[in-house]
Amino acid sequence: MRATVMYAAGDVRVEEVPDPVLTAPTDAVIRVTHACVCGSDLHPYHDLPDTPGGRRMGHEAIGVVEEVGSAVTTLSVGDTVIVPFAWSDGTCAFCRDGITTSCVHGGFFDGAPSATQAEKLLVPQADGTAVVVPAGTDEALMPSLLTLSDVYLTGHHAAHQGGVGPGKTVTVIGDGAVGLSAVLASAQLGAETIILMGRHTDRTDLGREFGATHVVAARGEEGIAEVLEITGGEGSHVVLEAVGHLPAYEQAYGVVRPGGTISRVGVPQYEDAPVGFASLFGKNATLTGGPATVRAYLEAVLPQVLDGTIDPGRVFDRELPLADIAEGYRLMDQRQALKVLIRP
Amino acid sequence: MRATVMYAAGDVRVEEVPDPVLTAPTDAVIRVTHACVCGSDLHPYHDLPDTPGGRRMGHEAIGVVEEVGSAVTTLSVGDTVIVPFAWSDGTCAFCRDGITTSCVHGGFFDGAPSATQAEKLLVPQADGTAVVVPAGTDEALMPSLLTLSDVYLTGHHAAHQGGVGPGKTVTVIGDGAVGLSAVLASAQLGAETIILMGRHTDRTDLGREFGATHVVAARGEEGIAEVLEITGGEGSHVVLEAVGHLPAYEQAYGVVRPGGTISRVGVPQYEDAPVGFASLFGKNATLTGGPATVRAYLEAVLPQVLDGTIDPGRVFDRELPLADIAEGYRLMDQRQALKVLIRP
Repeated sequence: MRATVMYAAGDVRVEEVPDPVLTAPTDAVIRVTHACVCGSDLHPYHDLPDTPGGRRMGHEAIGVVEEVGSAVTTLSVGDTVIVPFAWSDGTCAFCRDGITTSCVHGGFFDGAPSATQAEKLLVPQADGTAVVVPAGTDEALMPSLLTLSDVYLTGHHAAHQGGVGPGKTVTVIGDGAVGLSAVLASAQLGAETIILMGRHTDRTDLGREFGATHVVAARGEEGIAEVLEITGGEGSHVVLEAVGHLPAYEQAYGVVRPGGTISRVGVPQYEDAPVGFASLFGKNATLTGGPATVRAYLEAVLPQVLDGTIDPGRVFDRELPLADIAEGYRLMDQRQALKVLIRP
Repeated sequence: MRATVMYAAGDVRVEEVPDPVLTAPTDAVIRVTHACVCGSDLHPYHDLPDTPGGRRMGHEAIGVVEEVGSAVTTLSVGDTVIVPFAWSDGTCAFCRDGITTSCVHGGFFDGAPSATQAEKLLVPQADGTAVVVPAGTDEALMPSLLTLSDVYLTGHHAAHQGGVGPGKTVTVIGDGAVGLSAVLASAQLGAETIILMGRHTDRTDLGREFGATHVVAARGEEGIAEVLEITGGEGSHVVLEAVGHLPAYEQAYGVVRPGGTISRVGVPQYEDAPVGFASLFGKNATLTGGPATVRAYLEAVLPQVLDGTIDPGRVFDRELPLADIAEGYRLMDQRQALKVLIRP
């Protein structure tokens, strides 16, 4: 089969690789029908060291089940399934807590031997991981359903962990697909005011359609001052940080209200950051977030997509065949595309 | 009157200073009957640079109202009152949220012109700040009531912000008076397992009486391993960090369970710390806490002391007159006393 392999920063190739095979009775193999490129794929696209063996890419997928291991009971050959970016058994102590990304038998497709920007995918812990899409679902819904493998539910995770709800003022930092998803999720959760910090008008326009009540293009101290002004000098109850770079985090503690919450879902490209009296502690700010526990939300949000309540697939503004995926990376890196759908 | 003044690390003096006078109609002046030395007073005791003008010390007090400004309505001359370590108006947006330490008219007695280790104290925003102790309250309850100005309610804040409740496993880092208070508060809030990390047997013995189910004397990697073993390898739902130094924070993220919460009340003696994928983010851990919003809890917890449900004053193991307060600092610094009560 063909799969996407990255060999170094900027070096993305589609190559022939062996088909995945079942290795455990809990595995399934799917034929990938929809995949995509994630903002987080751009991190290795910028800084992956030379990797002679290559790194398989992609962690978002919808596909059709081709084969299941002997222990798999909830999936049948021919089912269309959504596969979250992390696999999980659904039964361990952490899965029962809803922290499926910390499953004791779990893992991330990113960097795994089988990843999703490919014609086929090996799904470990298939019963716990994959969620079946009802037979006969309209093909037009597939882009929105694909966002339930990562991007929309990552925005939802940010909002959920941050305690977004009615009456709350929410600031979303970042106008990428995750930030826009966080806007949409915040609106769904009833936020009263949603301030989107971003500087790309085509993106912030979609953010307004998703529910943003204000857009702040300025960054740094100037951006912080604008958010404080919008909030009557009080700051934002909840800040959703959907970038992952330190300046975004610094903006977050600059705009958070005393007693408020910063919820991060942009994978931090730093380890150390300010958390002392001058940043978080002094104003009793809470820092939360992490890899989205997509699987824990998926079944509850699926009906909202199926019945048209939300249309998170609008974040896809380009579609390419697998053969052209390197162009998809380039378009997203150059900000000529917001998010690229791939059809293997 | 006499007041405690620190001029440099280790240089604590009791000196004659002018009596405080009302400066605003919302002020009150109290005669301090009970004060104490706080673990956080030891930070300047270790590192205060030479300060020719001196720094007034103390932020915990019970006293008798001597004089009130014309706008004060809830206090009368002769009332015995508890004064939290921060003053607050009780009416601003942040006070209404319960974040009284961020009051827009608030401040901290620490380093203020009038502080509590003195014969008299100027209390700004007296109506919002001071809480009246019912007339006729037994003198024997005063030490426990004094802990409601800071130490017990700081432990309570840690536990409350951390989400301690029935069924939860809680690890308390630090066997100082705040850590022991956090143990007692966690027991009150119904924690199932309370692991106290501390190495001073006399203190951890009191911790067991306050409700600790386990004591771990080891620190660092060894201490983390012991806590993980006690929790069946899963980690602690809540970690209460009552020290303020970076190694305690590192222990905290080492023992927190995926999806769990670290609640800090030890004033951080650092600004930057690990918060990335390897520490907090990867396991969806939440970091919360800050200066205790003592005033927001005081009225709810007061009856528990008055009716004998809790006896947090047991953290006081020495009592000294104001004249000997320098000895009180020395005893606490040398760990010969847990917490020293001062009678001006």
